[in-house]
Parts: sequence; structure tokens; C-alpha cells
Amino acid sequence: MATEIRVNLLPRLLNEETDVAVVIDVLRATSTMTAALYFGAKKIVPVLSVEEARKYREGNSEVLIGGERGSKKIDGFDLGNSPCELSKEIIEGKELVITTTNGTVAISRSKRARKVILASFLNLGSVVRLLKKENGRIELQCAGTDGDPSLEDTLLAGAIVSQLEIGHSNDSCRIASVLHEAVKDNLESFIVENGVHAKRLLSLGFYEDVRFCAKINLYDVVPFWRDGGFVRG
Amino acid sequence: MATEIRVNLLPRLLNEETDVAVVIDVLRATSTMTAALYFGAKKIVPVLSVEEARKYREGNSEVLIGGERGSKKIDGFDLGNSPCELSKEIIEGKELVITTTNGTVAISRSKRARKVILASFLNLGSVVRLLKKENGRIELQCAGTDGDPSLEDTLLAGAIVSQLEIGHSNDSCRIASVLHEAVKDNLESFIVENGVHAKRLLSLGFYEDVRFCAKINLYDVVPFWRDGGFVRG
Repeated sequence: MATEIRVNLLPRLLNEETDVAVVIDVLRATSTMTAALYFGAKKIVPVLSVEEARKYREGNSEVLIGGERGSKKIDGFDLGNSPCELSKEIIEGKELVITTTNGTVAISRSKRARKVILASFLNLGSVVRLLKKENGRIELQCAGTDGDPSLEDTLLAGAIVSQLEIGHSNDSCRIASVLHEAVKDNLESFIVENGVHAKRLLSLGFYEDVRFCAKINLYDVVPFWRDGGFVRG
Repeated sequence: MATEIRVNLLPRLLNEETDVAVVIDVLRATSTMTAALYFGAKKIVPVLSVEEARKYREGNSEVLIGGERGSKKIDGFDLGNSPCELSKEIIEGKELVITTTNGTVAISRSKRARKVILASFLNLGSVVRLLKKENGRIELQCAGTDGDPSLEDTLLAGAIVSQLEIGHSNDSCRIASVLHEAVKDNLESFIVENGVHAKRLLSLGFYEDVRFCAKINLYDVVPFWRDGGFVRG
């Protein structure tokens, strides 16, 4: 049984005092990575730069590279940062090397925790089941958008906090859980109508992505960190 | 008419692109400073260090020094950081030099805005009336507690956002206003039962302070920055 939970509305630099780091970037990094493992990707390797991703693929036909800059697919990449463009045919058995604006930073700030997992609405139930079995301190690392807390990440953090009956170690737990409680019955429309990042994605034509990332419990998969990448737990 | 509002759940470094900075440290710095001006203090000078405050008072009988470290009154200071210990008899006509843990940092990060004012629940109505007349960009600078967003500052930011019908420039506006909407009918008990900082103050015996700082519209005073200190607006 975990003993305490802490919500970071922006990712803080963790160390091994944190037993489980839960990285949250609903739009869209952790949703995309969860979907990729669901469809059979062998491993997901998050990298910080476009160059690093390109180098990784050189001479390796088992590697796909994906990601975004300014929410758009990167020139020459195999994939963008969308859970909707993935399928078994595309990704099964492949390694996905991915670089995104906010999500990969949140991951890099979480790596020293004892265990690192990824959460999205798509795998909420599985994440909660796993966390209920953990011991020690859980930290929810919201990626946010360009250095500012985001509505959708805060909502998912709130959903997780609400389902775990353990002590809060900071006020952001309550801020997030009350927010989620207030709007949970209209989650998708609330995010679409109010989120700065959601609105930007809509303006770029990613309507399907935003709607999809608000769906709950589609995938029974928890990505967890092992040997330099995320694998299916 | 202001054109946009932004909420910073922790204070960011502002510059002159911000037309009005509203500093919020409900427990207790901005509540105490508002009360001090209400009771007739001539000026309030926030300083970052204990030594600075002591030097300011040397040889000047018109200066009182106040503040806290670890929520407690500082050794040798005239006052702590409590709106409840103030009265006309104590403070009228005096200059109050004050140093607090979170509030004075939030003020120092706001100083380059074109106008800087202080908000608390005690002067909420007056702050909103003033903001309705302003032009340009308003930023609400929540002090937080020891580098973490605080429930009570977020709630006050939400109350202000809800009463101003202007465009939100970040998601924290909505996070704060939905939170406030959800708990506004039980504001005092919600803060007392859930806030990390409130609980710490209660454990130190400051029950009256916590209750008092949740009272709404007691004082028709807006502290604003002029020539190195806050004066009555």
C-alpha cells in the first residue's frame, strides 16, 4: 500500500526518494506511447532532440521515429505524435523512438525514481490498479504545456488521486481532485472547450486526437521504464 | 477594460509587458499587509531578509518591523505576520517593514509590472472593482508555499478570475476558477481541512489567523506599489 501521493503540476526533478513516478502528458505523448505498446511496439525510447531520433534510426529497419515540434509531425519522421495514426500493422514488433515538446522533458526529469510509468486517460484503470499495489511515495509528474500547468494533465492527476485513498503530501493533490470531480461527467467537452493546448491542436486539425485522448480505459497496458525505454508492464 | 488574465500558481518573473500584477499570499502576507493599511499604516516595505528589516528600523521610531520565518514571529521583531494582531493603536501613521517566506518573494518577482497590487480575501471586492477598470494584461501571482502551489492562493485567484469576464491566457485560470466554484460555499472549512499551510498554522496555534484570512470583503483597501513600498490605493 502506498503511503503518500504528491502531484507536480509541472515536472520537478525527482530522485530515488520517489518510489513511483507517474508521467502524464495527455495531449499527446503518454497517450501515444500507451497506444504504441498496446499495438505491440517492442519498446519506446524517448529522446530530447530531433537529431538524436534520426541517428537512432540509421541503418536499423526495426526502428520507427516519431514526434512533434509545434504540435506538427517532424520533417522526414515516420510518425507524428498521435495515438490515432497507430495500428498493429504499423508498429508491432518495432522500436519507437519519439521526441515531443513537453512529454519527453517530463520523462527525463523522472528517470531517477525507483519506478517510472506512463499514464493517460486511455490506461487510467490499469495505472490505478498498479498504484494500489505499490509501496512508498508516488509522484504524479504532469508535463504541462510549454512550462505552464495544463488542464488535461491536471484532470488526469485528479482522477488518479481520487481513486487512491492515501495521504496527500501537497495541495496540488486536492486542486487536481476537486477539479476532476467538478467536470468528470463532461470531460471531453470540458477539455475541448477550455484547454489552451486542446484548442491549439484543434486549430491544426487534430480534432480526432483530442477527442481520442479523453477516452477512458481503452487499453489495459501500463508502460514502464526498463533499460533505456518503456516496455509493456 | 482589461483584455486578458493569466494565473501563475507560482510567481513567475514579470516585466513591463504585464500591466497589472496582483500578488496573492492569503496565509498570511497579503492579508496582513491589507489589514495594516486599513488600520492606517503609512507605508509597507517588503524586504527579503531579516537583517534588512532590522537595519531599516535603526534609529527610526516611526518604523515597525514584522514578519515570520517558519510561520513564527522573528526574534526581536515588533510584529509577526498576523492580520489579527493589528489595530489602529499599533500601526496608524507608522511604516511597516515586513519579511515573510513566500509573499515577499512573490512581490520581488512582480516589481517590474506597470502596476503592482496586493489581494487577499479580506479585500477581494475592492481588488475586483479596480481590475475591472484596468486595461491590458493582468497577471495573478500566487505566492504558494515553499515552491509549491497552495490551495488558498489558488482559490483566491479563482474567485478573481470568476468575477472578471475577460479572456484567459492560460489553463491555470480555469483550474483556479473551477476549484473556487466547487468549494466557495464552504471556503473556510475547505481551507482549514485541506490546506497544507493552513494545517501547519493550526498546529502552531494560529487558528484565529486561518479563519480570519478566509473572511471576504472586510476591508475596502487596495495596497498598491509606489516608491519602494505599498500604500493605500
